Amino acid sequence: MLIVLKERNNESLIAEVQDLLQRKFGCPSHIIGGNKRVLAVTGETSVIDIEYLRSIEGICSVDRVDRPYKLASREQKDRTLIKVGKDCVIGDPKSVVVIAGPCSIDSEGQLDESTAMAKQRGVKILRGGAFKPRTGPYSFQGTREVGLRMLAKAGAKYGMATISEVMKAEDLPLFEECVDLLQIGARNMQNYDLLKAIGKSKKPVLLKRALAATLEEWLLAAEYILHGGNPNVMLCERGIRTFEQEVRFTLCLGSIPALREMTHLPILVDPSHAMGKTRWVKDAALGGVAVGADGLIIEIHPRPQESSCDAAQLLDFEHWNECMDGVHAVAHAIGKTVI
Amino acid sequence: MLIVLKERNNESLIAEVQDLLQRKFGCPSHIIGGNKRVLAVTGETSVIDIEYLRSIEGICSVDRVDRPYKLASREQKDRTLIKVGKDCVIGDPKSVVVIAGPCSIDSEGQLDESTAMAKQRGVKILRGGAFKPRTGPYSFQGTREVGLRMLAKAGAKYGMATISEVMKAEDLPLFEECVDLLQIGARNMQNYDLLKAIGKSKKPVLLKRALAATLEEWLLAAEYILHGGNPNVMLCERGIRTFEQEVRFTLCLGSIPALREMTHLPILVDPSHAMGKTRWVKDAALGGVAVGADGLIIEIHPRPQESSCDAAQLLDFEHWNECMDGVHAVAHAIGKTVI
Amino acid sequence: MLIVLKERNNESLIAEVQDLLQRKFGCPSHIIGGNKRVLAVTGETSVIDIEYLRSIEGICSVDRVDRPYKLASREQKDRTLIKVGKDCVIGDPKSVVVIAGPCSIDSEGQLDESTAMAKQRGVKILRGGAFKPRTGPYSFQGTREVGLRMLAKAGAKYGMATISEVMKAEDLPLFEECVDLLQIGARNMQNYDLLKAIGKSKKPVLLKRALAATLEEWLLAAEYILHGGNPNVMLCERGIRTFEQEVRFTLCLGSIPALREMTHLPILVDPSHAMGKTRWVKDAALGGVAVGADGLIIEIHPRPQESSCDAAQLLDFEHWNECMDGVHAVAHAIGKTVI
Amino acid sequence: MLIVLKERNNESLIAEVQDLLQRKFGCPSHIIGGNKRVLAVTGETSVIDIEYLRSIEGICSVDRVDRPYKLASREQKDRTLIKVGKDCVIGDPKSVVVIAGPCSIDSEGQLDESTAMAKQRGVKILRGGAFKPRTGPYSFQGTREVGLRMLAKAGAKYGMATISEVMKAEDLPLFEECVDLLQIGARNMQNYDLLKAIGKSKKPVLLKRALAATLEEWLLAAEYILHGGNPNVMLCERGIRTFEQEVRFTLCLGSIPALREMTHLPILVDPSHAMGKTRWVKDAALGGVAVGADGLIIEIHPRPQESSCDAAQLLDFEHWNECMDGVHAVAHAIGKTVI
Repeated sequence: MLIVLKERNNESLIAEVQDLLQRKFGCPSHIIGGNKRVLAVTGETSVIDIEYLRSIEGICSVDRVDRPYKLASREQKDRTLIKVGKDCVIGDPKSVVVIAGPCSIDSEGQLDESTAMAKQRGVKILRGGAFKPRTGPYSFQGTREVGLRMLAKAGAKYGMATISEVMKAEDLPLFEECVDLLQIGARNMQNYDLLKAIGKSKKPVLLKRALAATLEEWLLAAEYILHGGNPNVMLCERGIRTFEQEVRFTLCLGSIPALREMTHLPILVDPSHAMGKTRWVKDAALGGVAVGADGLIIEIHPRPQESSCDAAQLLDFEHWNECMDGVHAVAHAIGKTVI
Repeated sequence: MLIVLKERNNESLIAEVQDLLQRKFGCPSHIIGGNKRVLAVTGETSVIDIEYLRSIEGICSVDRVDRPYKLASREQKDRTLIKVGKDCVIGDPKSVVVIAGPCSIDSEGQLDESTAMAKQRGVKILRGGAFKPRTGPYSFQGTREVGLRMLAKAGAKYGMATISEVMKAEDLPLFEECVDLLQIGARNMQNYDLLKAIGKSKKPVLLKRALAATLEEWLLAAEYILHGGNPNVMLCERGIRTFEQEVRFTLCLGSIPALREMTHLPILVDPSHAMGKTRWVKDAALGGVAVGADGLIIEIHPRPQESSCDAAQLLDFEHWNECMDGVHAVAHAIGKTVI
Repeated sequence: MLIVLKERNNESLIAEVQDLLQRKFGCPSHIIGGNKRVLAVTGETSVIDIEYLRSIEGICSVDRVDRPYKLASREQKDRTLIKVGKDCVIGDPKSVVVIAGPCSIDSEGQLDESTAMAKQRGVKILRGGAFKPRTGPYSFQGTREVGLRMLAKAGAKYGMATISEVMKAEDLPLFEECVDLLQIGARNMQNYDLLKAIGKSKKPVLLKRALAATLEEWLLAAEYILHGGNPNVMLCERGIRTFEQEVRFTLCLGSIPALREMTHLPILVDPSHAMGKTRWVKDAALGGVAVGADGLIIEIHPRPQESSCDAAQLLDFEHWNECMDGVHAVAHAIGKTVI
Repeated sequence: MLIVLKERNNESLIAEVQDLLQRKFGCPSHIIGGNKRVLAVTGETSVIDIEYLRSIEGICSVDRVDRPYKLASREQKDRTLIKVGKDCVIGDPKSVVVIAGPCSIDSEGQLDESTAMAKQRGVKILRGGAFKPRTGPYSFQGTREVGLRMLAKAGAKYGMATISEVMKAEDLPLFEECVDLLQIGARNMQNYDLLKAIGKSKKPVLLKRALAATLEEWLLAAEYILHGGNPNVMLCERGIRTFEQEVRFTLCLGSIPALREMTHLPILVDPSHAMGKTRWVKDAALGGVAVGADGLIIEIHPRPQESSCDAAQLLDFEHWNECMDGVHAVAHAIGKTVI
């Protein structure tokens, strides 16, 4: 960390800041340069309250230099490969994983048909919402435990791994029994108690980006889980909130190459929630593959109009097949295999 | 709800849409107008998946007309008055409440001094963070139960009501024992399990706006609590995330008159977290009063540099006194009393 | 346009609104539905001040139903094909155009080398900035007329069409002499005098999206040009301004399928300005092709470090070749040809 | 400017970067600190392409330290006082100026009535739009030269200074004849040719913030005018574009204290365009005064429903009087006088 003072040779301010750094944050610092305006801080600088330093009268600027996350950082390693279920490895630069299934698990029949749709196109990980975070209290809240057990059953029947969103720590034992991959939704990305609980789980996790999270905040949320002892975190871009209202959310496909340089964790894209309309999902899915995502998570349904939620964005047979044809073609074009 | 079709006299589409509305959402509908393009939908339209309707080929537009929240709506009543502690009533159009206290409860001594600072200026509700939501896992996480009990003790000693942020449902019994007013932080505004649990509490609640929440989403979060049976919800604007990076968050003071027309719930402003710098807090606090907020929640500390968090934005004695002088003057100017 | 009143049977308000619509905007209206809450407005509704209607006490909601642009609307036709230079047709669903060249025209030698780079990969339209809009007055402002004439010369030498940004109406005669395609930059998207002047030009136009423009505002800017008599407008997404700061701008690739449904005009993508870093441009370019853009505009330079502007994002030989290899592969994968 | 390298003692990279800085930007630099990771750059660093430095492999971070604008900087002086017309001085910390008048100049009668409304409340500067920037080509485009001459006449009749928006450089002679204060609208904030032309004018300027401009970009736009030789620039916050859609724009009142520390230029607020609804304008106006703005610019009209544009946000007599009563009261409360 570099601290630049407004004036040269301000000995008393230098002494005050050095004392503060040492006493409050345990960080040594020393002056660099002849005009005595720059302090270089060493030690465990991630605990330093950088905003406070910036607010001190007489300090001109503070440059963190290093990122505040460590375990999630690309400096740790190049790539994390995460095994989900028996035979699916996510994060290999030569492959693109597709996770698919219904938005909401409404009934055994609907889930079975949706699972068959997914299986038919070679999907190895089945998604399905049981506990649903809904914007309003009058919307359908999910089939909950019943639905989750249906998901486990469908996964077993079709030989697929499973993923579902967990909303609170108390439900973890149930999820660990029923799914292979835990999902943390956008609204819970900074639910720190949940992150800490999942940090102690043995199951891999898919962590969605919050609607207004910077890449750094997202990686700090991942850091909570990694720091808790769970190394198997993958990230999922699902669109941020901007002034653009014609699509449901603004999918940050352009951030993926930047994120790739910041972290070794696998990066997936959710085109369904971002686009919000069935007929736009395929284009966004192909875009996600083309910018280099490690995978996609897509919502499908044999008859979208019957779904208890998000009917507007579900892919029916025709759209699903078109989408997968495109995903295979684009993945192949950039030297990747769809798994 | 009004549904407009692209074409006139499309009998088969009309029949299909009417059937869907009735069968899936239980809502009757009828054609209005001679050219048969407009369907008026009646009944419990808040359960209708409006995005799905919009995605149907042949439908041109859907106008909800009514808002999806009910209990929080201004149509219910003009104003909700909320009693906190023994003698503080929030929401009266003629008063402005000031809640104050340290960002974080670090020690008995620090809390006592901060409480005295608040008390001296007539503050009736003491704030103090015990369970702290921190962006990164390496930051100080709060004094937790110990801190919360200190807060209760300080409140009792100085005859003040207390408020602190609750982060998970399991902590509710402890909070109900120790505080008079529950705070839900911005990051938990859509933690629906927490909202549901607090809906069953007898304690009033201060619900902060999430960084990317629309006013409608915010009121739907309040609706969860109201619907759960707890009528005492107050809202707190604390800044949204925008491209503006010179201040910590963008305080939506301009939205307050709009929000006032949408809901009967009291509306407070948190100038401390939005501004992020001690020397800017007063101006934002005065702005909040001037645009018509029902109150402010402000962070103070006898010696900000010693605080374990958010030191950059805490008001010391001098800034606190200046701020309160200004708050009184502006409140008085618009015909209000500071309580 | 549909206007919904708050109350039923409010005869005096109905009369007042109907009178206003007829007298001020020349639009007839009639009540539809038995409970007398809905007014259907006909005639030239695009001149109606919708915000004013919404602000009238007693009006509950106003739904425009139809979009305020007409000539740019997809309802006019399916696709506009635009011929640039002698043999390049933009907008065909089976082709992807690549426009390339240096950010800034610095010298004849540099331009010649850059043009050769472009030509070598089959590029038919050469870009080059002569009049440069720079954020600060101390930055290099472009080689201006001298540069523009160099561009014309380079285009002639290599048999390529040319494009450059025009910043004010008075420069139009010079541009019409020197380039085949006029570019309007993001900062001038709502410079209405410029749009009107270009509406009278015979040259095709590439209209970049402003940093904070909605899709509707963008199409209304295009409408100015179309309405002026110039039918050959193509749109170029170049990233919007959001809270995301790790990349230069947030490229709205997800909006492209939505925009395609709104308009018949060709849609291009500028990955260079959005990403801001050489090593990220290729991924964004491939993403643009995959989501269905009609073309790309890319900045290249034999030795980026020598460029007088935007050196951070220019593609050198190696990155350019990799990018074009990828563009061809992805275009081919989705059934398109690169032109 | 400080440049931090990723590795220590990378002599060849140090040499390369130092050479680049000297040769391309004319800036000397030297290593500071013993581990040879930090370069301090001196000289005219505002011409350096900081993004390019950041993109160089091996460079870890670049901290500008100093702002890229100079003449607009607070380091130049504390406050600029700007005289408009004969007796109105804007920028004094003890006063708040109110500029008022109709959105659009529609007729002599309407302007006369509006001017009388303004004059009655002591307003010294009359606003009125003659050349109107409208989002769509079918909207009323203003009474143009005719309207501007009416404005000059009204100003003379009532002894008031005048302000109107200028949209292109060619119109400057006409504006210099008719108005005392030039307005640059949000959409033209980065119309650099217009800024340069106005830099040569003798008239003071009010520069509105663009919808997506950072404070730094806004000050760089002001810098264009100052650098051109016109020292009399005042800034006007009028709301930015965010995801918040319930009000027209998001008024950044919280940024005003931050902006005050960055520049010596006067800062005004436009509550009318930001709020978009008559009944919300007063609260925003009072908020603007309370956060410390140097003035307000407000749209008024004797009968808003007759206005040719922005009828939804115009203050009629009743709202105008209430607003001015509040402005006086709040200004007085913070020790200021309304001029």
